[in-house]
Amino acid sequence: MKITYAVVGTGGIGGYYGGCLAKAGQPVHFLLHSDYEYVKEHGLQVDSVNGNFHLDNLAVYRDSHDMPQCDVVLVCLKTTQNHLLPDILRPILHEKSVVVLIQNGMGMEQELAQQFPNTSIVGATAFICTTKIAPGHIHHAEYGALTLAKYCGQCDDSIRQIADDFTAAGVGVSVFDDLWSVRWKKLVWNIPYNGLTVVLNASTDELTRDSNSRKLVIDLMEEVVQAGRMCGAKISDTFIPKMITMTENMTPYSPSMKLDYDAHRLLEIQTMFSNPIRIAAEHGFTMSKTQVVENQLRFLTKQE
Amino acid sequence: MKITYAVVGTGGIGGYYGGCLAKAGQPVHFLLHSDYEYVKEHGLQVDSVNGNFHLDNLAVYRDSHDMPQCDVVLVCLKTTQNHLLPDILRPILHEKSVVVLIQNGMGMEQELAQQFPNTSIVGATAFICTTKIAPGHIHHAEYGALTLAKYCGQCDDSIRQIADDFTAAGVGVSVFDDLWSVRWKKLVWNIPYNGLTVVLNASTDELTRDSNSRKLVIDLMEEVVQAGRMCGAKISDTFIPKMITMTENMTPYSPSMKLDYDAHRLLEIQTMFSNPIRIAAEHGFTMSKTQVVENQLRFLTKQE
Repeated sequence: MKITYAVVGTGGIGGYYGGCLAKAGQPVHFLLHSDYEYVKEHGLQVDSVNGNFHLDNLAVYRDSHDMPQCDVVLVCLKTTQNHLLPDILRPILHEKSVVVLIQNGMGMEQELAQQFPNTSIVGATAFICTTKIAPGHIHHAEYGALTLAKYCGQCDDSIRQIADDFTAAGVGVSVFDDLWSVRWKKLVWNIPYNGLTVVLNASTDELTRDSNSRKLVIDLMEEVVQAGRMCGAKISDTFIPKMITMTENMTPYSPSMKLDYDAHRLLEIQTMFSNPIRIAAEHGFTMSKTQVVENQLRFLTKQE
Repeated sequence: MKITYAVVGTGGIGGYYGGCLAKAGQPVHFLLHSDYEYVKEHGLQVDSVNGNFHLDNLAVYRDSHDMPQCDVVLVCLKTTQNHLLPDILRPILHEKSVVVLIQNGMGMEQELAQQFPNTSIVGATAFICTTKIAPGHIHHAEYGALTLAKYCGQCDDSIRQIADDFTAAGVGVSVFDDLWSVRWKKLVWNIPYNGLTVVLNASTDELTRDSNSRKLVIDLMEEVVQAGRMCGAKISDTFIPKMITMTENMTPYSPSMKLDYDAHRLLEIQTMFSNPIRIAAEHGFTMSKTQVVENQLRFLTKQE
């Protein structure tokens, strides 16, 4: 039997992944905010490097109280919206629902588990360049793979089925059993590139090309690797050079935090910087350099 | 007998201090570069909070080979020009000359002592807001005190006489016997405020008022204090709160590095950041946070 999906937050991430599942024939229920009227009337347009597609007559909602309970809830909000999650999730979870947090940073699963202690929670990272460029209009520029790892709950079968569904929908999926390492490894890239593109008003390729910023990127990466290892994450010695080479081969682009900053949206400073700093400190490691960038970001955005 | 002064670098600092000495009747020989013709013809105008004055018929030179040997040479160049010092100084030093480096940062005396091993060298810090606003036109906005401390040589009598001459010229002077502490204490203010006003495009009062940048300023100050103490400098526990209070009471202003950055001049990154970082490392202390700001400055200025 097909499992039912809810997509909470139909922006670049939610619109793309939810759209791929819906196109592949999965039952998907989309929660929308500002774009509800538009998508209800005009459907969802996805312009993708893998081929464009359009979806009409989607199951769209503007209030989760109107949604059915779903087997899998894909949370695709920015983490700056996570304070809304308890109210959004309560009506759409049944006792075996799995919540998948496709989000940046660290500490989101812990917080959700305190609010929903009996719910299965999966963490996910998306390696993708995708943006909402207009109401109901998603532009998927590059990449697309998802990494899933269980945080808590009896959900190994569900994870396998989610992975199968995404694979059938054309999305590459990796499943790991160690969410901690997945989250820390993602931060190895996210902390330097998201932070410094904002503070130095630079693109990923400028930062990687200039010898001084490249040194700073690598210094920050090394600090994150050390912090992660102190917290028990497994990160190999070749990971940093791999990340640098990958960035050198990427189309120059603005990471999500730079896009948020340029659009005057809230930045994910708390989950991407403050939570890892706090968690590392609890494990006896001070992330000195990351703290500098964190404070600079908070100064520039006046985010307390 | 009066001692003769040379002023090397007649900008905001050299023009003001040299001007005060000349006004008080000391023999002062001014080395100028771009303003030579103008000052030769029109003299030097000093607009000072302590009263404006104008000096005509100054002893001005465009080449130090035309200058007499002087008893005291006040080096008022930016440290980014220090590679010129050997050529400039050689013709104007006699065997008892004293070179006073009124400069920001660290390591200038060591470098000069290698080039002139038999010359007496004094380090000085200026607590002053003064700028050259036009050719031969100095604007002195606030403060003015000099701190002198011997680096090397038999020059205790000379230092006393220099202090007396400045005092007679209306310039407050403190003489310390521990240049190391003087230099490190100056960096406690200079590193956070010079670095962050550039990187964050902010004024001293903004940085001090906002809770996140204030925390970052204090974090950087604490790192400099720790580094200084590891290197043997004596800095009291009350020094940081005193610096913060002083900054809160200052007229908001742009430190020298911010002025240099806005004017597209070279920044004193080497002496104000890289040298202290290197010297601290030689004493077993890593200035992690300062390194972040150093790399950001080098990225922003493309200064290798």
